[in-house]
Amino acid sequence: MTARSIDGKAIAAKVRADVAAAVKQLSAQPALAVVLTGDDPASQVYVASKGKATIEAGMRSVEIRLPADTTEADLIARVDALSRDPDIDGILVQLPLPKHISEANVLAVIDPLKDVDGLTEASAGKLVLGKPGLRPCTPVGCVILAKTERPDLSGANVVVIGRSILVGKPAALLFLEQNATVTIAHSKTRDLKMVCRGADILVAAVGRPEMVRGDWIRPGAIVIDVGTNRVPAPEKGEGKTKLAGDVHFAEAIEVAAAVSPSPGGVGPMTIACLLRNTVIAACARRGWDLPAQLAG
Amino acid sequence: MTARSIDGKAIAAKVRADVAAAVKQLSAQPALAVVLTGDDPASQVYVASKGKATIEAGMRSVEIRLPADTTEADLIARVDALSRDPDIDGILVQLPLPKHISEANVLAVIDPLKDVDGLTEASAGKLVLGKPGLRPCTPVGCVILAKTERPDLSGANVVVIGRSILVGKPAALLFLEQNATVTIAHSKTRDLKMVCRGADILVAAVGRPEMVRGDWIRPGAIVIDVGTNRVPAPEKGEGKTKLAGDVHFAEAIEVAAAVSPSPGGVGPMTIACLLRNTVIAACARRGWDLPAQLAG
Repeated sequence: MTARSIDGKAIAAKVRADVAAAVKQLSAQPALAVVLTGDDPASQVYVASKGKATIEAGMRSVEIRLPADTTEADLIARVDALSRDPDIDGILVQLPLPKHISEANVLAVIDPLKDVDGLTEASAGKLVLGKPGLRPCTPVGCVILAKTERPDLSGANVVVIGRSILVGKPAALLFLEQNATVTIAHSKTRDLKMVCRGADILVAAVGRPEMVRGDWIRPGAIVIDVGTNRVPAPEKGEGKTKLAGDVHFAEAIEVAAAVSPSPGGVGPMTIACLLRNTVIAACARRGWDLPAQLAG
Repeated sequence: MTARSIDGKAIAAKVRADVAAAVKQLSAQPALAVVLTGDDPASQVYVASKGKATIEAGMRSVEIRLPADTTEADLIARVDALSRDPDIDGILVQLPLPKHISEANVLAVIDPLKDVDGLTEASAGKLVLGKPGLRPCTPVGCVILAKTERPDLSGANVVVIGRSILVGKPAALLFLEQNATVTIAHSKTRDLKMVCRGADILVAAVGRPEMVRGDWIRPGAIVIDVGTNRVPAPEKGEGKTKLAGDVHFAEAIEVAAAVSPSPGGVGPMTIACLLRNTVIAACARRGWDLPAQLAG
């Protein structure tokens, strides 16, 4: 094993400690509302950990759990009420939503000032235009992890595999803000392996288990695995599953300089960045100074 | 000379003819308002040609000319009035504005439904999220020109030099929508020449006269020159100037398969796409069906 495994949990713990220290300096306690609709087991786990982390950071956690048969109109009314509630600083609508509900319609009623997930049209527009705003949590986590290995990303060749609105596109724009040269690759890319081998920093956000093999990676590159795929794990028993990233970790670690594994890399960062965004949102909306821990 | 020079004027004339045919099918005449603040000579020329083209397409042109010492508050009030005027379908605020006025503050009062230049936060957000909306004119022109040479851009390697919010970033997102693999390069890019040589389609939007030389271009590539730089033209007399693109045309035409020159390429397309956006905006806002000429 030649490469470092980037310890996302430790780096996320540092971000969370900064958030907790920042919260102590505020004149009131920020509140994060998370809306969970339906019974998706993975979502249940995420929402529980988000609530726990919010409280640990010294903030107020509001969890709203709605049944899977909630109508779109009811969900919109609930989110709209949170947007209007002056005591709520951040709103996260846990995705995916049940199939009968339009995600776009629901996200559209989130007050952009409370859009701690950074997924609304207003937040996306601010990101493109380089205006201050709330950035999506997972891509921000990718940039923070990459910068722990290479603090100055200027001129680095970054290849992002995947062009989703949750990860790929915002990650590309955020690395561009860091003055990296950014390539967005995807399922239609010709000779994807060779494109990836050009990367100083390779971000895999494609949703195909262990697609990125050792020979896709330039020796000495930094690899950030965003994938979380559920795969069979017969070694754990019949019908058992486990999580696997988009990167073949055992091969990648032999070639790269550093690999952020999945699970254990970007995942913890996503929650940490959500807490960070909640404080940023609270300060911007309430006219508070942003505590020094979260500036820059 | 081995390559085709892409005839932007002819392709723009076709788009404008489609717009004129579409306008004839509408139940009322769309109106485009252009706001010019100050005496910038290039802006005067652009605004005059936009007005002429609007009328030639069968639409109503509203030109508002304000003195260079207009206050930001006055300009905002004028733009806000246009946003509220039910008879106005498109609003274009000619840039650059005088230095004492914030472009962002002025653009923020354009009704997103009338944002025919595609420069507001709302339009940028829709572009990232892949939602229907008004796309910026110059980058749309680049895509149309590239598609005249290569109708299916899927899997093409596109390199965009420049990351402005007017051209570079939206062009990258629009080529991505066409399933191209997109690289965004800029002043911080290492070995820019080699990055450009990887491009099947090279879009130069950087603002440095004739920066892209023949040996930056892969043989057989398509080159779209977005640059319009004013340079000395001593051959026209002392103190005279002329326009030059970002691409060294004489060298590029020996290497590429096709080159869109500047001037004469993207420029005419920008106005044509502005007219097209005005009809699209009118139809969306007034609830009219989009005429077949402009669909897709």
